[in-house]
Amino acid sequence: MNSSEIFDHIVKKRSFLCVGLDTEIEKIPSFLLKEKDPVFEFNKRIIDATCNFAVAYKPNVAFYECYGSKGWISLEATVRYIKDNHPDLFVIADAKRGDIGNTSKMYAKAFLDNMPFDAITVAPYMGEDSVTPFLSYTGKWIVLLALTSNKGADDFQYHDEDGIKLFERVLSVSQKWGTHDNTMYVVGATRADMLKDIRKIVPDHFLLVPGVGAQGGSLEDVAKYGMNSKCGLLVNSSRGIIFADSSKDFDKIAGQKAKEIQLEMMRYLNERNLI
Amino acid sequence: MNSSEIFDHIVKKRSFLCVGLDTEIEKIPSFLLKEKDPVFEFNKRIIDATCNFAVAYKPNVAFYECYGSKGWISLEATVRYIKDNHPDLFVIADAKRGDIGNTSKMYAKAFLDNMPFDAITVAPYMGEDSVTPFLSYTGKWIVLLALTSNKGADDFQYHDEDGIKLFERVLSVSQKWGTHDNTMYVVGATRADMLKDIRKIVPDHFLLVPGVGAQGGSLEDVAKYGMNSKCGLLVNSSRGIIFADSSKDFDKIAGQKAKEIQLEMMRYLNERNLI
Repeated sequence: MNSSEIFDHIVKKRSFLCVGLDTEIEKIPSFLLKEKDPVFEFNKRIIDATCNFAVAYKPNVAFYECYGSKGWISLEATVRYIKDNHPDLFVIADAKRGDIGNTSKMYAKAFLDNMPFDAITVAPYMGEDSVTPFLSYTGKWIVLLALTSNKGADDFQYHDEDGIKLFERVLSVSQKWGTHDNTMYVVGATRADMLKDIRKIVPDHFLLVPGVGAQGGSLEDVAKYGMNSKCGLLVNSSRGIIFADSSKDFDKIAGQKAKEIQLEMMRYLNERNLI
Repeated sequence: MNSSEIFDHIVKKRSFLCVGLDTEIEKIPSFLLKEKDPVFEFNKRIIDATCNFAVAYKPNVAFYECYGSKGWISLEATVRYIKDNHPDLFVIADAKRGDIGNTSKMYAKAFLDNMPFDAITVAPYMGEDSVTPFLSYTGKWIVLLALTSNKGADDFQYHDEDGIKLFERVLSVSQKWGTHDNTMYVVGATRADMLKDIRKIVPDHFLLVPGVGAQGGSLEDVAKYGMNSKCGLLVNSSRGIIFADSSKDFDKIAGQKAKEIQLEMMRYLNERNLI
Protein backbone atom coordinates (compact mmCIF):
# COMPACT_ATOMS: atom_id res chain seq x y z
CA MET A 1 0.00 0.00 0.00
CA ASN A 2 1.38 3.46 -0.83
CA SER A 3 0.57 6.86 0.69
CA SER A 4 -1.90 7.79 -2.08
CA GLU A 5 -3.90 4.64 -1.45
CA ILE A 6 -4.01 5.42 2.27
CA PHE A 7 -5.19 8.96 1.50
CA ASP A 8 -7.86 7.65 -0.90
CA HIS A 9 -9.11 5.39 1.85
CA ILE A 10 -9.18 8.31 4.29
CA VAL A 11 -11.28 10.33 1.81
CA LYS A 12 -13.62 7.38 1.22
CA LYS A 13 -14.18 6.72 4.92
CA ARG A 14 -13.97 10.42 5.91
CA SER A 15 -11.83 9.22 8.76
CA PHE A 16 -8.18 8.93 9.77
CA LEU A 17 -8.92 6.72 12.75
CA CYS A 18 -6.66 3.85 13.75
CA VAL A 19 -8.22 1.44 16.25
CA GLY A 20 -5.71 0.05 18.74
CA LEU A 21 -6.27 -3.61 19.57
CA ASP A 22 -4.71 -3.67 23.06
CA THR A 23 -6.83 -6.67 23.94
CA GLU A 24 -6.60 -7.79 27.58
CA ILE A 25 -8.40 -11.01 28.41
CA GLU A 26 -9.31 -9.59 31.85
CA LYS A 27 -11.34 -6.85 30.16
CA ILE A 28 -13.13 -9.00 27.59
CA PRO A 29 -16.88 -9.45 28.21
CA SER A 30 -17.24 -12.67 30.18
CA PHE A 31 -19.63 -14.34 27.73
CA LEU A 32 -16.78 -14.51 25.18
CA LEU A 33 -14.52 -16.50 27.50
CA LYS A 34 -16.22 -19.76 26.51
CA GLU A 35 -14.97 -19.31 22.92
CA LYS A 36 -11.96 -21.30 21.75
CA ASP A 37 -9.93 -18.10 21.18
CA PRO A 38 -11.66 -15.33 23.16
CA VAL A 39 -9.07 -12.68 22.23
CA PHE A 40 -9.57 -13.28 18.50
CA GLU A 41 -13.33 -13.50 18.91
CA PHE A 42 -13.34 -10.14 20.71
CA ASN A 43 -11.13 -8.54 18.05
CA LYS A 44 -13.25 -9.93 15.22
CA ARG A 45 -16.41 -8.39 16.65
CA ILE A 46 -14.66 -5.08 17.37
CA ILE A 47 -13.32 -4.97 13.80
CA ASP A 48 -16.71 -5.78 12.27
CA ALA A 49 -18.40 -3.10 14.39
CA THR A 50 -15.83 -0.33 13.80
CA CYS A 51 -14.47 -0.92 10.29
CA ASN A 52 -16.84 1.55 8.63
CA PHE A 53 -15.31 4.34 10.72
CA ALA A 54 -11.63 3.40 10.69
CA VAL A 55 -8.85 3.18 8.10
CA ALA A 56 -6.28 1.35 10.20
CA TYR A 57 -5.93 -1.17 13.04
CA LYS A 58 -3.01 -1.51 15.39
CA PRO A 59 -2.66 -4.67 17.45
CA ASN A 60 -0.30 -3.96 20.35
CA VAL A 61 1.97 -7.00 20.25
CA ALA A 62 2.75 -6.98 24.01
CA PHE A 63 -0.88 -7.79 24.76
CA TYR A 64 -0.56 -10.99 22.69
CA GLU A 65 2.99 -11.97 23.70
CA CYS A 66 1.96 -11.99 27.34
CA TYR A 67 -0.12 -15.09 26.54
CA GLY A 68 2.85 -16.86 24.96
CA SER A 69 2.38 -19.07 21.90
CA LYS A 70 -1.41 -18.95 22.44
CA GLY A 71 -1.28 -15.17 22.19
CA TRP A 72 0.63 -15.41 18.93
CA ILE A 73 -2.10 -17.59 17.50
CA SER A 74 -4.65 -14.88 18.39
CA LEU A 75 -2.42 -12.21 16.82
CA GLU A 76 -1.94 -14.19 13.61
CA ALA A 77 -5.68 -14.88 13.38
CA THR A 78 -6.49 -11.20 13.93
CA VAL A 79 -4.25 -9.79 11.22
CA ARG A 80 -5.32 -12.48 8.75
CA TYR A 81 -8.99 -11.80 9.50
CA ILE A 82 -8.53 -8.10 8.79
CA LYS A 83 -6.58 -8.54 5.54
CA ASP A 84 -8.81 -11.38 4.25
CA ASN A 85 -12.03 -9.46 4.85
CA HIS A 86 -10.99 -5.81 4.53
CA PRO A 87 -7.87 -5.68 2.34
CA ASP A 88 -7.97 -1.85 2.16
CA LEU A 89 -7.46 -1.50 5.91
CA PHE A 90 -3.91 -0.62 6.95
CA VAL A 91 -2.70 -2.92 9.72
CA ILE A 92 0.18 -1.92 11.98
CA ALA A 93 2.05 -4.29 14.29
CA ASP A 94 2.78 -2.11 17.31
CA ALA A 95 5.93 -3.98 18.25
CA LYS A 96 8.62 -1.30 18.81
CA ARG A 97 11.30 -3.63 17.46
CA GLY A 98 14.89 -2.81 16.44
CA ASP A 99 18.18 -4.72 16.72
CA ILE A 100 21.39 -5.33 14.75
CA GLY A 101 20.83 -5.99 11.04
CA ASN A 102 20.59 -9.78 10.95
CA THR A 103 18.17 -9.69 13.90
CA SER A 104 15.96 -6.88 12.56
CA LYS A 105 15.75 -8.93 9.38
CA MET A 106 14.17 -11.73 11.41
CA TYR A 107 11.69 -9.36 13.07
CA ALA A 108 10.80 -7.97 9.63
CA LYS A 109 10.21 -11.50 8.37
CA ALA A 110 8.01 -12.27 11.39
CA PHE A 111 5.65 -9.34 10.92
CA LEU A 112 5.86 -8.23 7.26
CA ASP A 113 6.35 -11.58 5.53
CA ASN A 114 5.02 -14.43 7.68
CA MET A 115 2.12 -12.27 8.85
CA PRO A 116 0.37 -9.85 6.48
CA PHE A 117 0.95 -6.67 8.49
CA ASP A 118 1.33 -3.52 6.37
CA ALA A 119 3.59 -1.84 8.90
CA ILE A 120 5.56 -2.26 12.10
CA THR A 121 6.56 0.29 14.73
CA VAL A 122 10.35 0.48 15.08
CA ALA A 123 12.61 1.97 17.79
CA PRO A 124 15.42 4.17 16.42
CA TYR A 125 18.07 3.90 19.18
CA MET A 126 20.34 1.47 17.27
CA GLY A 127 20.36 3.54 14.06
CA GLU A 128 20.30 2.89 10.33
CA ASP A 129 21.26 -0.78 10.03
CA SER A 130 18.71 -1.67 12.74
CA VAL A 131 15.91 0.04 10.78
CA THR A 132 16.57 -0.54 7.07
CA PRO A 133 15.93 -4.33 7.11
CA PHE A 134 12.27 -3.46 7.74
CA LEU A 135 12.27 -1.37 4.54
CA SER A 136 13.14 -4.25 2.21
CA TYR A 137 9.53 -5.36 1.63
CA THR A 138 7.81 -3.49 -1.23
CA GLY A 139 4.56 -1.85 -0.16
CA LYS A 140 5.31 -2.31 3.54
CA TRP A 141 6.03 0.43 6.05
CA ILE A 142 7.92 1.28 9.17
CA VAL A 143 6.48 3.60 11.79
CA LEU A 144 9.55 5.00 13.51
CA LEU A 145 9.38 6.31 17.09
CA ALA A 146 10.12 10.03 17.12
CA LEU A 147 8.36 11.85 19.97
CA THR A 148 6.32 9.53 22.13
CA SER A 149 3.23 10.27 24.23
CA ASN A 150 4.54 9.14 27.62
CA LYS A 151 6.22 11.10 30.41
CA GLY A 152 9.52 9.26 29.87
CA ALA A 153 9.82 10.93 26.44
CA ASP A 154 11.44 13.80 28.39
CA ASP A 155 14.36 11.63 29.54
CA PHE A 156 16.18 11.27 26.22
CA GLN A 157 14.09 12.47 23.26
CA TYR A 158 14.80 16.14 24.05
CA HIS A 159 18.59 15.58 24.44
CA ASP A 160 19.84 18.64 22.55
CA GLU A 161 22.97 18.88 20.39
CA ASP A 162 23.50 22.41 19.06
CA GLY A 163 19.80 23.19 19.11
CA ILE A 164 18.79 19.87 17.53
CA LYS A 165 16.83 17.59 19.81
CA LEU A 166 17.22 13.83 19.54
CA PHE A 167 13.70 13.30 18.16
CA GLU A 168 14.37 15.98 15.53
CA ARG A 169 17.58 14.21 14.55
CA VAL A 170 15.65 10.95 14.27
CA LEU A 171 13.16 12.69 11.95
CA SER A 172 15.82 14.26 9.73
CA VAL A 173 18.42 11.46 9.59
CA SER A 174 15.89 8.68 8.95
CA GLN A 175 14.50 10.47 5.89
CA LYS A 176 17.66 9.31 4.10
CA TRP A 177 16.73 5.67 4.78
CA GLY A 178 13.23 5.58 3.35
CA THR A 179 10.59 7.67 1.59
CA HIS A 180 7.18 9.06 2.52
CA ASP A 181 5.80 5.94 0.85
CA ASN A 182 7.35 3.54 3.35
CA THR A 183 8.08 5.56 6.49
CA MET A 184 5.71 7.07 9.07
CA TYR A 185 6.60 8.56 12.44
CA VAL A 186 5.11 8.16 15.91
CA VAL A 187 4.33 11.56 17.42
CA GLY A 188 2.30 11.50 20.63
CA ALA A 189 -0.93 13.51 20.81
CA THR A 190 0.09 14.64 24.29
CA ARG A 191 2.74 16.75 22.47
CA ALA A 192 0.34 18.21 19.87
CA ASP A 193 1.88 21.69 20.26
CA MET A 194 5.12 20.23 18.88
CA LEU A 195 3.45 19.11 15.66
CA LYS A 196 3.84 22.52 14.01
CA ASP A 197 7.63 22.35 14.28
CA ILE A 198 7.68 18.65 13.42
CA ARG A 199 5.80 19.40 10.18
CA LYS A 200 8.69 21.70 9.18
CA ILE A 201 11.02 18.67 9.25
CA VAL A 202 8.61 16.08 7.81
CA PRO A 203 6.00 18.00 5.77
CA ASP A 204 4.92 15.05 3.65
CA HIS A 205 5.17 11.99 5.88
CA PHE A 206 2.27 10.29 7.58
CA LEU A 207 2.32 10.58 11.37
CA LEU A 208 0.85 7.91 13.62
CA VAL A 209 -0.50 9.74 16.63
CA PRO A 210 -1.26 7.80 19.82
CA GLY A 211 -2.35 9.34 23.08
CA VAL A 212 -5.79 10.71 22.17
CA GLY A 213 -8.44 9.63 24.69
CA ALA A 214 -7.19 7.65 27.71
CA GLN A 215 -3.79 9.38 27.59
CA GLY A 216 -5.36 12.86 27.39
CA GLY A 217 -4.32 14.21 23.96
CA SER A 218 -6.67 16.48 21.97
CA LEU A 219 -7.81 15.39 18.51
CA GLU A 220 -8.62 18.98 17.60
CA ASP A 221 -5.05 20.12 18.33
CA VAL A 222 -3.57 17.16 16.47
CA ALA A 223 -5.63 18.01 13.37
CA LYS A 224 -4.88 21.73 13.70
CA TYR A 225 -1.09 21.37 13.94
CA GLY A 226 -0.43 18.04 12.24
CA MET A 227 -2.66 17.76 9.17
CA ASN A 228 -1.08 18.23 5.75
CA SER A 229 -2.52 18.41 2.22
CA LYS A 230 -2.91 14.62 2.09
CA CYS A 231 -4.19 14.44 5.67
CA GLY A 232 -0.90 12.86 6.75
CA LEU A 233 -2.35 11.62 10.02
CA LEU A 234 -3.45 8.33 11.48
CA VAL A 235 -4.79 8.98 14.97
CA ASN A 236 -5.01 6.00 17.26
CA SER A 237 -7.55 5.27 19.95
CA SER A 238 -7.47 1.99 21.84
CA ARG A 239 -9.09 1.64 25.26
CA GLY A 240 -11.58 4.49 24.64
CA ILE A 241 -13.15 2.42 21.86
CA ILE A 242 -12.56 -1.27 22.50
CA PHE A 243 -13.27 -1.24 26.25
CA ALA A 244 -16.00 1.43 26.23
CA ASP A 245 -18.47 -1.24 27.37
CA SER A 246 -18.30 -4.78 28.72
CA SER A 247 -21.87 -5.96 28.18
CA LYS A 248 -23.28 -8.19 25.41
CA ASP A 249 -23.44 -4.99 23.33
CA PHE A 250 -19.75 -4.14 23.72
CA ASP A 251 -19.18 -4.20 19.97
CA LYS A 252 -22.17 -1.96 19.23
CA ILE A 253 -20.93 0.57 21.80
CA ALA A 254 -17.38 0.34 20.37
CA GLY A 255 -18.87 1.10 16.95
CA GLN A 256 -20.68 4.14 18.37
CA LYS A 257 -17.46 5.42 19.97
CA ALA A 258 -15.56 4.95 16.71
CA LYS A 259 -18.34 6.76 14.84
CA GLU A 260 -18.19 9.71 17.26
CA ILE A 261 -14.48 10.09 16.55
CA GLN A 262 -15.02 9.62 12.80
CA LEU A 263 -17.61 12.41 12.79
CA GLU A 264 -15.17 14.74 14.53
CA MET A 265 -12.44 13.74 12.04
CA MET A 266 -14.82 14.39 9.14
CA ARG A 267 -15.25 17.94 10.41
CA TYR A 268 -11.49 18.56 10.39
CA LEU A 269 -11.07 16.99 6.92
CA ASN A 270 -13.90 19.22 5.71
CA GLU A 271 -12.37 22.36 7.17
CA ARG A 272 -9.22 21.62 5.16
CA ASN A 273 -11.25 20.91 2.00
CA LEU A 274 -9.81 17.40 1.84
CA ILE A 275 -13.24 15.84 1.42
CA MET B 1 19.43 -13.95 41.25
CA ASN B 2 21.57 -11.07 42.58
CA SER B 3 24.96 -9.80 41.40
CA SER B 4 26.88 -11.73 44.09
CA GLU B 5 25.31 -14.98 42.98
CA ILE B 6 26.28 -14.24 39.38
CA PHE B 7 29.84 -13.49 40.49
CA ASP B 8 30.00 -16.71 42.56
CA HIS B 9 28.92 -18.61 39.48
CA ILE B 10 31.60 -16.87 37.38
CA VAL B 11 34.25 -17.88 39.93
CA LYS B 12 32.96 -21.46 40.05
CA LYS B 13 32.94 -21.85 36.26
CA ARG B 14 36.03 -19.65 35.71
CA SER B 15 34.05 -18.12 32.89
CA PHE B 16 31.95 -15.08 32.09
CA LEU B 17 30.66 -16.50 28.83
CA CYS B 18 27.10 -15.98 27.66
CA VAL B 19 26.07 -18.25 24.79
CA GLY B 20 23.72 -16.57 22.33
CA LEU B 21 20.98 -18.86 21.05
CA ASP B 22 20.32 -17.16 17.67
CA THR B 23 18.97 -20.42 16.31
CA GLU B 24 18.14 -20.39 12.59
CA ILE B 25 16.42 -23.49 11.26
CA GLU B 26 18.34 -23.13 7.96
CA LYS B 27 21.61 -23.60 9.85
CA ILE B 28 20.58 -26.53 12.03
CA PRO B 29 22.23 -29.89 11.12
CA SER B 30 19.84 -31.65 8.75
CA PHE B 31 19.52 -34.82 10.84
CA LEU B 32 17.70 -32.79 13.52
CA LEU B 33 14.97 -31.63 11.14
CA LYS B 34 13.05 -34.88 11.64
CA GLU B 35 12.55 -34.02 15.33
CA LYS B 36 9.18 -32.63 16.44
CA ASP B 37 10.77 -29.32 17.51
CA PRO B 38 14.17 -29.10 15.75
CA VAL B 39 14.97 -25.64 17.17
CA PHE B 40 14.46 -26.81 20.75
CA GLU B 41 16.31 -30.07 20.08
CA PHE B 42 19.26 -28.11 18.68
CA ASN B 43 19.26 -25.70 21.64
CA LYS B 44 19.05 -28.56 24.16
CA ARG B 45 22.12 -30.26 22.72
CA ILE B 46 24.04 -26.97 22.50
CA ILE B 47 23.18 -26.20 26.14
CA ASP B 48 24.20 -29.65 27.35
CA ALA B 49 27.50 -29.43 25.45
CA THR B 50 28.43 -25.89 26.53
CA CYS B 51 26.98 -25.45 30.03
CA ASN B 52 30.23 -26.36 31.80
CA PHE B 53 31.91 -23.38 30.15
CA ALA B 54 29.15 -20.75 30.31
CA VAL B 55 27.33 -18.83 33.04
CA ALA B 56 24.56 -17.37 30.89
CA TYR B 57 22.43 -18.05 27.82
CA LYS B 58 20.75 -15.47 25.64
CA PRO B 59 18.02 -16.60 23.25
CA ASN B 60 17.57 -13.90 20.61
CA VAL B 61 13.78 -13.58 20.49
CA ALA B 62 13.63 -12.47 16.83
CA PHE B 63 14.91 -15.88 15.76
CA TYR B 64 11.91 -17.51 17.45
CA GLU B 65 9.26 -14.91 16.56
CA CYS B 66 10.02 -15.36 12.89
CA TYR B 67 8.47 -18.84 13.17
CA GLY B 68 5.29 -17.42 14.74
CA SER B 69 3.47 -19.34 17.46
CA LYS B 70 5.61 -22.42 16.72
CA GLY B 71 8.74 -20.35 17.41
CA TRP B 72 7.30 -19.24 20.72
CA ILE B 73 6.80 -22.86 21.73
CA SER B 74 10.52 -23.49 20.99
CA LEU B 75 11.47 -20.39 23.00
CA GLU B 76 9.33 -21.40 25.98
CA ALA B 77 10.71 -24.95 25.89
CA THR B 78 14.30 -23.66 25.72
CA VAL B 79 14.14 -21.34 28.72
CA ARG B 80 12.26 -23.93 30.78
CA TYR B 81 14.83 -26.59 29.89
CA ILE B 82 17.67 -24.36 31.06
CA LYS B 83 16.04 -23.30 34.34
CA ASP B 84 14.76 -26.83 35.16
CA ASN B 85 18.13 -28.48 34.56
CA HIS B 86 20.63 -25.74 35.39
CA PRO B 87 18.95 -23.28 37.79
CA ASP B 88 22.22 -21.40 38.41
CA LEU B 89 22.49 -20.34 34.75
CA PHE B 90 21.42 -16.76 34.05
CA VAL B 91 19.02 -16.61 31.11
CA ILE B 92 18.48 -13.41 29.17
CA ALA B 93 15.63 -12.79 26.72
CA ASP B 94 17.28 -10.68 24.04
CA ALA B 95 14.10 -8.89 23.08
CA LYS B 96 14.98 -5.15 23.03
CA ARG B 97 11.48 -4.26 24.26
CA GLY B 98 10.23 -0.92 25.59
CA ASP B 99 6.89 0.91 25.32
CA ILE B 100 4.53 3.07 27.39
CA GLY B 101 4.03 1.84 30.96
CA ASN B 102 0.96 -0.38 30.60
CA THR B 103 2.50 -2.03 27.53
CA SER B 104 5.96 -2.58 29.02
CA LYS B 105 4.13 -4.20 31.95
CA MET B 106 2.73 -6.76 29.50
CA TYR B 107 6.16 -7.43 27.97
CA ALA B 108 7.59 -7.86 31.48
CA LYS B 109 4.83 -10.34 32.28
CA ALA B 110 5.55 -12.26 29.06
CA PHE B 111 9.25 -12.77 29.71
CA LEU B 112 9.83 -12.44 33.47
CA ASP B 113 6.63 -13.98 34.84
CA ASN B 114 5.05 -16.34 32.29
CA MET B 115 8.49 -17.51 31.18
CA PRO B 116 11.31 -18.03 33.71
CA PHE B 117 13.83 -15.63 32.12
CA ASP B 118 16.15 -13.92 34.61
CA ALA B 119 16.54 -10.83 32.46
CA ILE B 120 15.35 -9.02 29.36
CA THR B 121 17.15 -6.54 27.12
CA VAL B 122 15.32 -3.20 27.04
CA ALA B 123 15.56 -0.20 24.67
CA PRO B 124 15.84 3.17 26.45
CA TYR B 125 14.38 5.60 23.86
CA MET B 126 11.00 6.03 25.61
CA GLY B 127 12.53 6.74 29.04
CA GLU B 128 11.78 5.93 32.66
CA ASP B 129 8.14 4.78 32.60
CA SER B 130 8.92 2.48 29.65
CA VAL B 131 11.72 0.78 31.60
CA THR B 132 10.63 0.60 35.25
CA PRO B 133 7.77 -1.91 34.74
CA PHE B 134 10.49 -4.48 33.98
CA LEU B 135 12.05 -3.76 37.40
CA SER B 136 9.01 -4.79 39.42
CA TYR B 137 9.95 -8.50 39.63
CA THR B 138 12.25 -9.30 42.56
CA GLY B 139 15.44 -11.08 41.51
CA LYS B 140 14.88 -10.25 37.83
CA TRP B 141 16.98 -7.92 35.70
CA ILE B 142 16.90 -5.51 32.83
CA VAL B 143 19.79 -5.22 30.40
CA LEU B 144 19.46 -1.70 29.05
CA LEU B 145 20.89 -0.74 25.66
CA ALA B 146 23.65 1.83 26.11
CA LEU B 147 26.31 1.62 23.38
CA THR B 148 25.57 -1.07 20.83
CA SER B 149 27.98 -3.04 18.65
CA ASN B 150 26.54 -2.14 15.23
CA LYS B 151 27.48 0.63 12.81
CA GLY B 152 24.15 2.39 13.34
CA ALA B 153 25.18 3.14 16.94
CA ASP B 154 26.88 6.22 15.45
CA ASP B 155 23.57 7.69 14.24
CA PHE B 156 22.07 8.66 17.62
CA GLN B 157 24.01 7.17 20.55
CA TYR B 158 26.79 9.78 20.24
CA HIS B 159 24.33 12.73 20.03
CA ASP B 160 26.12 15.16 22.35
CA GLU B 161 24.53 17.67 24.73
CA ASP B 162 27.14 19.82 26.49
CA GLY B 163 29.77 17.09 26.29
CA ILE B 164 27.41 14.33 27.42
CA LYS B 165 26.66 11.76 24.76
CA LEU B 166 23.25 10.10 24.61
CA PHE B 167 24.58 6.68 25.69
CA GLU B 168 26.32 8.33 28.65
CA ARG B 169 23.06 10.02 29.62
CA VAL B 170 21.30 6.65 29.40
CA LEU B 171 23.94 5.18 31.74
CA SER B 172 23.73 7.99 34.29
CA VAL B 173 19.97 8.73 34.27
CA SER B 174 18.93 5.06 34.41
CA GLN B 175 20.95 4.46 37.57
CA LYS B 176 18.19 6.32 39.41
CA TRP B 177 15.66 3.72 38.24
CA GLY B 178 17.34 0.55 39.42
CA THR B 179 20.38 -0.81 41.25
CA HIS B 180 23.42 -2.85 40.27
CA ASP B 181 21.41 -5.85 41.47
CA ASN B 182 18.72 -5.49 38.81
CA THR B 183 20.26 -3.46 35.99
CA MET B 184 22.95 -4.38 33.48
CA TYR B 185 23.95 -2.47 30.35
CA VAL B 186 24.65 -3.53 26.77
CA VAL B 187 28.03 -2.24 25.62
CA GLY B 188 29.27 -3.61 22.30
CA ALA B 189 32.69 -5.27 22.15
CA THR B 190 33.33 -3.40 18.90
CA ARG B 191 33.59 -0.28 21.12
CA ALA B 192 35.94 -1.85 23.70
CA ASP B 193 38.07 1.31 23.85
CA MET B 194 35.03 3.14 25.25
CA LEU B 195 34.76 0.76 28.18
CA LYS B 196 37.33 2.67 30.24
CA ASP B 197 35.19 5.82 30.20
CA ILE B 198 31.99 3.84 30.63
CA ARG B 199 33.40 2.27 33.81
CA LYS B 200 33.74 5.79 35.25
CA ILE B 201 29.95 6.19 34.97
CA VAL B 202 28.95 2.64 35.94
CA PRO B 203 31.81 1.19 38.00
CA ASP B 204 29.75 -1.51 39.72
CA HIS B 205 27.18 -2.64 37.16
CA PHE B 206 27.39 -5.78 35.08
CA LEU B 207 27.87 -5.14 31.37
CA LEU B 208 26.54 -7.51 28.73
CA VAL B 209 29.02 -7.37 25.87
CA PRO B 210 27.98 -8.64 22.44
CA GLY B 211 30.09 -8.38 19.31
CA VAL B 212 33.00 -10.69 20.17
CA GLY B 213 33.65 -13.19 17.38
CA ALA B 214 31.53 -12.83 14.22
CA GLN B 215 31.18 -9.06 14.75
CA GLY B 216 34.94 -8.59 15.26
CA GLY B 217 35.31 -7.42 18.89
CA SER B 218 38.34 -8.43 20.98
CA LEU B 219 37.79 -10.37 24.20
CA GLU B 220 41.19 -9.29 25.48
CA ASP B 221 40.31 -5.59 25.12
CA VAL B 222 36.91 -6.09 26.71
CA ALA B 223 38.50 -7.75 29.75
CA LYS B 224 41.26 -5.14 29.90
CA TYR B 225 38.98 -2.10 29.87
CA GLY B 226 35.70 -3.47 31.20
CA MET B 227 36.44 -5.86 34.07
CA ASN B 228 35.77 -4.67 37.64
CA SER B 229 36.47 -6.20 41.05
CA LYS B 230 33.45 -8.53 40.71
CA CYS B 231 34.22 -9.29 37.06
CA GLY B 232 31.20 -7.22 36.01
CA LEU B 233 31.15 -8.72 32.54
CA LEU B 234 29.05 -11.19 30.63
CA VAL B 235 30.53 -11.58 27.16
CA ASN B 236 28.27 -13.05 24.53
CA SER B 237 29.19 -15.27 21.61
CA SER B 238 26.48 -16.69 19.36
CA ARG B 239 27.30 -17.83 15.82
CA GLY B 240 30.96 -18.54 16.61
CA ILE B 241 29.85 -21.27 19.03
CA ILE B 242 26.47 -22.62 18.00
CA PHE B 243 27.13 -22.76 14.25
CA ALA B 244 30.82 -23.68 14.39
CA ASP B 245 29.97 -27.04 12.80
CA SER B 246 26.96 -28.58 11.05
CA SER B 247 27.83 -32.29 11.23
CA LYS B 248 26.53 -34.94 13.62
CA ASP B 249 29.16 -33.67 16.05
CA PHE B 250 27.95 -30.04 16.00
CA ASP B 251 27.35 -30.04 19.75
CA LYS B 252 30.76 -31.49 20.54
CA ILE B 253 32.43 -28.80 18.37
CA ALA B 254 30.27 -26.10 19.99
CA GLY B 255 31.48 -27.37 23.36
CA GLN B 256 35.10 -27.14 22.20
CA LYS B 257 34.58 -23.57 20.96
CA ALA B 258 32.95 -22.58 24.27
CA LYS B 259 35.83 -24.21 26.15
CA GLU B 260 38.40 -22.25 24.12
CA ILE B 261 36.69 -18.99 25.10
CA GLN B 262 36.34 -20.14 28.71
CA LEU B 263 40.08 -20.87 28.90
CA GLU B 264 40.87 -17.39 27.61
CA MET B 265 38.42 -15.90 30.13
CA MET B 266 40.04 -17.91 32.94
CA ARG B 267 43.35 -16.27 32.08
CA TYR B 268 41.88 -12.76 32.39
CA LEU B 269 40.12 -13.63 35.68
CA ASN B 270 43.42 -15.01 36.95
CA GLU B 271 45.35 -11.89 35.97
CA ARG B 272 42.93 -9.83 38.08
CA ASN B 273 43.19 -12.31 41.00
CA LEU B 274 39.46 -12.94 40.86
CA ILE B 275 39.92 -16.71 40.86
